[in-house]
Order: sequence, then C-alpha cells, then structure tokens
Amino acid sequence: MKTNPGRFFEDYRIGEVIAHAVPRTVSGGERALYHALYPARGALYSSDAFAQACGLPQSPVDDLIAFHTVFGKTVPDISLNAVANLGYAEGRWLAPVYPGDTLRAQSEVIGLKENSNGASGNVYVRTAGLNQHGVTVLDYVRWVMVRKRSPDAPAPDPVVPALAKVVAPADLVVPQGLTFEGYDFALAGEPHRWGDYAVGEQIDHVDGVTIEEAEHMIATRLWQNTAKVHFDATFRPDGRRLIYGGHVISLARALSFNGLANAQMIVALNGGAHANPCFAGDTVKAWSEVLDKAETAAPGIGAIRLRLVATKQGAEPFALRGEAGKYLPEVLLDLDYWALMPL
Amino acid sequence: MKTNPGRFFEDYRIGEVIAHAVPRTVSGGERALYHALYPARGALYSSDAFAQACGLPQSPVDDLIAFHTVFGKTVPDISLNAVANLGYAEGRWLAPVYPGDTLRAQSEVIGLKENSNGASGNVYVRTAGLNQHGVTVLDYVRWVMVRKRSPDAPAPDPVVPALAKVVAPADLVVPQGLTFEGYDFALAGEPHRWGDYAVGEQIDHVDGVTIEEAEHMIATRLWQNTAKVHFDATFRPDGRRLIYGGHVISLARALSFNGLANAQMIVALNGGAHANPCFAGDTVKAWSEVLDKAETAAPGIGAIRLRLVATKQGAEPFALRGEAGKYLPEVLLDLDYWALMPL
Amino acid sequence: MKTNPGRFFEDYRIGEVIAHAVPRTVSGGERALYHALYPARGALYSSDAFAQACGLPQSPVDDLIAFHTVFGKTVPDISLNAVANLGYAEGRWLAPVYPGDTLRAQSEVIGLKENSNGASGNVYVRTAGLNQHGVTVLDYVRWVMVRKRSPDAPAPDPVVPALAKVVAPADLVVPQGLTFEGYDFALAGEPHRWGDYAVGEQIDHVDGVTIEEAEHMIATRLWQNTAKVHFDATFRPDGRRLIYGGHVISLARALSFNGLANAQMIVALNGGAHANPCFAGDTVKAWSEVLDKAETAAPGIGAIRLRLVATKQGAEPFALRGEAGKYLPEVLLDLDYWALMPL
Repeated sequence: MKTNPGRFFEDYRIGEVIAHAVPRTVSGGERALYHALYPARGALYSSDAFAQACGLPQSPVDDLIAFHTVFGKTVPDISLNAVANLGYAEGRWLAPVYPGDTLRAQSEVIGLKENSNGASGNVYVRTAGLNQHGVTVLDYVRWVMVRKRSPDAPAPDPVVPALAKVVAPADLVVPQGLTFEGYDFALAGEPHRWGDYAVGEQIDHVDGVTIEEAEHMIATRLWQNTAKVHFDATFRPDGRRLIYGGHVISLARALSFNGLANAQMIVALNGGAHANPCFAGDTVKAWSEVLDKAETAAPGIGAIRLRLVATKQGAEPFALRGEAGKYLPEVLLDLDYWALMPL
Repeated sequence: MKTNPGRFFEDYRIGEVIAHAVPRTVSGGERALYHALYPARGALYSSDAFAQACGLPQSPVDDLIAFHTVFGKTVPDISLNAVANLGYAEGRWLAPVYPGDTLRAQSEVIGLKENSNGASGNVYVRTAGLNQHGVTVLDYVRWVMVRKRSPDAPAPDPVVPALAKVVAPADLVVPQGLTFEGYDFALAGEPHRWGDYAVGEQIDHVDGVTIEEAEHMIATRLWQNTAKVHFDATFRPDGRRLIYGGHVISLARALSFNGLANAQMIVALNGGAHANPCFAGDTVKAWSEVLDKAETAAPGIGAIRLRLVATKQGAEPFALRGEAGKYLPEVLLDLDYWALMPL
Repeated sequence: MKTNPGRFFEDYRIGEVIAHAVPRTVSGGERALYHALYPARGALYSSDAFAQACGLPQSPVDDLIAFHTVFGKTVPDISLNAVANLGYAEGRWLAPVYPGDTLRAQSEVIGLKENSNGASGNVYVRTAGLNQHGVTVLDYVRWVMVRKRSPDAPAPDPVVPALAKVVAPADLVVPQGLTFEGYDFALAGEPHRWGDYAVGEQIDHVDGVTIEEAEHMIATRLWQNTAKVHFDATFRPDGRRLIYGGHVISLARALSFNGLANAQMIVALNGGAHANPCFAGDTVKAWSEVLDKAETAAPGIGAIRLRLVATKQGAEPFALRGEAGKYLPEVLLDLDYWALMPL
C-alpha cells in the first residue's frame, strides 16, 4: 500500500524520534494570508519599521504561524488516527521566524499509556520546530489519544511524563536584541502597559467573527494540515467539517488585540484544551484573564501569563465551567500562555 | 476598561491630529491576495517587466491596496461608532507603494457639525498615509456621521470645510519617472488610448461577480479593518454581515478593466457614495462614464476622469438615480476618480 | 465598443500568433496562496532547503501555477466564446518558475475545423509561456470548440494537426542542475521510489476535499482567468458557477501526494479531459494509475507516466468509464502526465 494509513498506538516506542515530512519555507505570502484569515493587528508582526524599533532585524511572522506550521507537519505521524487531542504543555518559542526561513519538525515519543478499554492509548510527544540553520524555534509537548490497530496488541509499560503545569518565568526566552524601551504605544494601538494589568483581571475582547467553511479550510491547508475531518464533508456521519483547533486559537488570539494590543509576543504555551468542537457558522468571541505576571531581564520587557478563552454564540461573559467542573458547551478553547509586554 | 470603545462625536476637536495605530509592511503576499480577491488585471500592477518598461523600478501594489490599508487604520479612531460613511473628497495618490514599504496613517480633524437631532454629528478628517521614509503616499478627506456618547454634550461651533468638487488636473501627481511613451497596448490588453475616449461616453463592463462571505471578510481583514458589522453575523438584527464599501470599490474597479484596461493608475478620488448596502450573494457588475479628460506634463500620459458605478442584480444598464434624484436600490457605489492613461 | 467580445471561430487564421495580455510577476504570495487553496505538500515546492539539496537555486513555484498563469492569459483570446474545452496534448514544462519571475503567454493557431452544424468549430492552439528572459517555461497544445459569430461565415479549409498521444520520454526536459541523488525520502514524506511503482498499479489517494464557492473563485481569479461562468451566479440558467477545470486538476494533483509524494515534478501533459462539470459542494477525491515508466539521463531521476482521475461523491474506486466507453457521471477529470521521481 502506497498511501499513509497513519500510525496506531502500538506503532510508537518510548524514545523514538520521528522526523516529520515536508519542510516549509515561509514568506510574505504566509504573513499576508495570516492577516487575511485572522483579525491580527499586533504591530510587531505587522510592520518592519515597528519591529526594527524594537531591536529585531525585521517583522517576524506571527508566533502562531510557527506553531501551526510545525503542528501541521506532525499530523500525518501523530494524529491521523487520533481520537482526541488531549493537551499541550511546556511549549516555548525560542527564536523568531522570519520570511525566508524554512521550518521542519521532529517529535520524540516521551510517554505511552494504554487505556483500560484496550482500544486506544495516550501518546505523549515532545515536538521541536527547527529552522534552516538547525536552530530550534519552538518546542512543545502534546498528547493525543490514538486508536490501536489491533485490540490484541500487548500494552506497553505505561510511561507518563512529569510535565510542568506552567513554564517557569526563568525559562522564558526573550528573542535576542528585543527591547521595548522605545516602544511606541500610539502605533501599537493601546496605552496599557504591563504595570496596568492586575492578576485576576478579566477582559472581554468584545469583537466577534462568524466563521465560514472556506476560511478555516484555507487556513488549515496553509499549515499543510490535511486531516480529513477538516476538509471532507462526507467523512463525519453528520456531514460537518470539524474546524482545526488551531484555527480557533489564532482567531481568539487575534481578537484579544482589543484589550491586549501590547501582549506582543507569545513566548510560552503552558497548557490548553479544545473544550468543544467548532463548526462553520459559529460566531467566535474571546475573553482573557491575567493569571500571573513576571519580570524579565530584557530591557523594558515584562511577561504576562494569560488565560485565553474562545466562546461561541450563546456564551455568558467570563463563564467557563459548569456542573462538576465541566466546560460549558459554548466554550471552545481554554488556553494558558505567556506573552511579552512593555513595562 | 482596556478595550477600545471608539470615539464619540464629542471626543473630536478641530485641528486635532490622530496618529492611527498598527503600521503595516506590504509584500508580494498582499499583492497576490489582491489579485485573488478581485479580478484585477491592470498590467502595471501585475508585471515588474511592464512597470519597468513604464519607467518604474518595479510593479507597485494596486493603488487601492494603499487606500484600503490607510483606511483600515483609521477605523478604530474614526468610524467605530459611525452611523454612516458620508463622503470622500480631495483624494490624491502622491507616490506609488512597493512591496517592502511600511504604511502608517494619521488624520487631522478639519470639520465638525452636530446634527439637529442632538444625537450625532458629522466629523470631517483629512487622512494621510505615509511610508517608512515619511513620504505621504495618499491623502484624502472623508466625512462620517458619528454618534454622541451623551445627548447632553454641548454642540461644538460648527466647522464645515470647503471641499473641492473635483481635484483640478493641475493638482494630479504623476509618479516620478512614469512614462507611457513605449506603452505596449497588446500586453496591456486593449488598444483604446486616451484619445479614443470621449467625455460623456458610457461603458458597460459586462462581467459580474457573485460575492461570498469568506471573500469579503478575507479582504477586509487584510486591510486590518475590524469593524464588527463586517464579520459578526450576530451583530445586526437581521443577521447579515454588511460588506465593507471598499470591497465594492475594488471589485468594481477590477471589473472596469474590460473596457478601461488602459486606465492604469488612479491618481485622484474626487468623491464617492456607497449608495446602498452590499451583502454576500449579491452579484456585482459595473459601468463607467467618462466625466472629463485632461493633459499632463508627463511623457505620453493623459488623465481621464471617470464615474465608476457598481450595481447588483436587477440593475438596468446605466441607470443611476430614480425619483427625486435618489440612487436606485440596485446601485451600490458611485465613485468619481482620475486615472492616468496612455495618449 | 470598448469591451472585449472575445473571438469567434471565423476570427482565427492558421499560423496566426496571438500575444496574450497582462504579463504577471509571481511571488511568495502566489506560492502561499497555492498551498492555502490546495493540499499541496510536494517538498520540492515547499522548501528552499529541500530544493537546494536537489540542485535548484531555490524552491520553484508549483508547476501548475505556471500552467494556470499561462492558461489564464489565453482565456480572453481563446475561450471567451468557447462551448467546450476539448483536449490538451504535447504539454511540456521546460524551465522552473521562481518567485520574482514574470510570465507572459502567446498562442499560435495550428488547427481549424468547422463543425458540420455550421454553428461552431474547433480551434487548435499551441500556447507558450515565457519568462522575463524570453525563455519558454511551458508549451502545450489545447483545442476548444468556439461559436461562430455568424452562421453564414464561410468554413475555412480544415486543418487538424497531428498530435502525439504521449510526449516521448526522450523529449522530457529535466531542469538544469536537478539531481535526486541525495534525495531525502523522510523529508519528502514517503519511502516509495521509482522502482517501487509498477506499470498498471492503481493508487487510491484516500483523502477528499469538499469545495466551497469562495475557494474556486479565489483560485481562478489568482490566475487572472475571468471567464464569467466561474464567477457570476446569474450567468447560467441554473444559477450555478461552473468550477474552472484547472482547479480540479490542482486539487487532484495535490491529493495525489498521499501515495505519490515523490512524483515531484510535472514535466509533461500528455492529454486530459474534463469529463464532467464540477460545482461547489462537490467532494473531490482522486486516484492514479501508473501508465508507463522511463529512465532519464539526469542523476537519480526517473520518469513516471500517470493517469490522474478526479471524482466526486458517489464514485466507485477506480471506475472510469461506463457504457459505450463514456465517462461515468462521477468522474470529473482524466489527466495523463509525466512526473519526475527519485530512482
């Protein structure tokens, strides 16, 4: 058989390193498409002049372009037979990605645990995105529930990695040369600086976007994520195309500009849950909560830890969980990340 | 409150200069998207080789990319609480924009007049788009009707600027170096030169495009115009997303290639009205009328003043206004501009 | 009349060379859009680093970008009044196209044959795409059935060119410098090399894509193909927009990655039929059949001749023709091409 059937649970081995296929050179084209698909307005990712004033050689591509590009490459090896995307942890952005850079990805299997039903198991991988110089630009842990090919396949010794709940502030990497000392708040779009945000503060980002099928498919394909469920209306019994969870992440992050315009750069992904599926026709809104704040050694730069919640029509403001701690049905995403902000 | 509530009528002061946020570097990506979203075929904006034969260093991005990019930046400061976009005047393109250029925008408040109902007022701004060298690439006046925050706010002294009905031919700026002396009509697509058009001549551009939600949202986002009404189907009581008026401008201008392929470069916007709202599902067609012609001092280059009308399904050819001079319901746009054309 | 009415059958002359309008510079923007519109994953067209390891200066744009760009330019002169696109033959890709290249197109009329009904005739053209250096990058024959303006126009002497059924292996052009000797199968996505494919082998490419109106219009416009039938829902009596046949070609070719990831480069188009019309809402899948194999003189590079079939919902695997040799109604495309593959 020439086509890729995907890996099943029993195909993974602890310590195995999987080189994912199809490296990708990003350009101004990916950048423009990102701005066309999401209401992204972060000045650092919009203007070479603004980025240069912040000490970077030019405007990098959005941090989530790097994430999606790397994530997309892992799909054929990790999640083609996945039943569920269970979580993220210990994600760090280690170097900006610029137009012209070529990204590839590799994953190490760091955990395996068969489910008690014997039909599936959880696979934990640490995925790295590397550029053409071999520099790791992004690193994160993800775990998924994967079907077994055969229920009779023996269960491996369970290995569940110990994962940090939060990336420690000391482990955040500020891009070399980045400074927010001459930061232009007027050009950035909002006056609120790091000191203006309080832990516990909640922000309703107000704006909403109703999603179309063409948009989420164009976005998901751009990351070379070709999972059938996103594209083929005949695949699911209900005839609906499931929207790639990363599309909701980017949409919510872009919407959060309104209130968090200066949370410029994502440097860590502490965790995240795709709480409910999203479909075309849903109107996505977002709210954030300040979970923590930390200083950095870099000039004029503070770190802010944010919960980013995406919801759909019918959601109550700031409502997250209902009975028994379960996510409310209108909650699409609950993401926990660190961003850099001018002091 | 961290989010931007937008400005209300009483927040504007005559003479105030507003620096709009989020500068933007344009690239080949924006150019390609423009060609993917509109049936644009102007040779000068399609081919480096053609542009170089016309004396430019390379193919600039479409004039309307410059306009939309600048316009989009003004939305959060000017039209977030606007009830209506009332008009344009004295628009001039002053320098081409090339891939790699970074645009920012600023507006000076030049007029204020409260409406007799005390609930809103008209705000007149002169907006400039500047590139990374501080050169003004575009300059235009726009006026909008903006809600008051409080009906009790006192009315300002009314100031209504005197605006030219038409940009005078002597004020048109031809890009430095531009020549149409070796102009290749075969490559441009049509044989008709400046001398072939007569004042009063009307041209039906024949082709039509049925608009999809995904397309107008992708376009509007690309210009970082994030007005809710274009994106959020839950925003208007009728559940419809209003299409950004600029999308109709670009669509109509691109359709006008068929009959005006040599009206290459827009150099002035004399005025314009978004006569009726446009929604997804509408089929847009366009017709033009030659309003005037003028010579320029540049080699081989004439100027032509055109009315560009966009219509939707049901429109009669060349029908513009009905009883009492009101725009017919099938008319979407009535635009008045100057373009450069080979003699 | 200023608008282009298109040519009718009696407007063509044997030996006439038509220079098509609107040259086009392609950039990273077109490349990114191609990846956003089609699930394309060929490593050579995705990564500069991969392309450089294969001896090219950088990653070229997809071969079908060159094809669509050239094809699109021919539409106003060749197929505006076409009743049917009848066939392709003797297509060869002669040089890669890189971001920054400018393409123009010209066609020579090589055949004319009026139909017995006197209402239309077949026009055969040999079309060449040239870059800014005057190098032919692509060359193919296409024939279409074109309406007559007047049924009374006299029939020309019939000329039907002798066309090769298949481009001979000796006539395939391997890009200068291309080598697959250090080919990285892991990065390319599949281990199957030229030697692993057998003539007669059939591959079901498994994945499917449900097409949206916005997607095929965005794609078709990108190639500056502005035929009304693709864009104007009021044009056909049934209110449906016919999808550009080339959109189906690109979709099927991209889907064929799954099983043919190493069929990297298209070098010849032997023939092709758009068997049935495609509309938005159709779910397109693809299968391939190995028709032939050949060696080349280039290092590590073999040629493989493939039939690529695109189908829509309801298709049976590998079913192509029904009674009387007629294409089954679920078959959209039957394409015959040569690709280069690592030995």
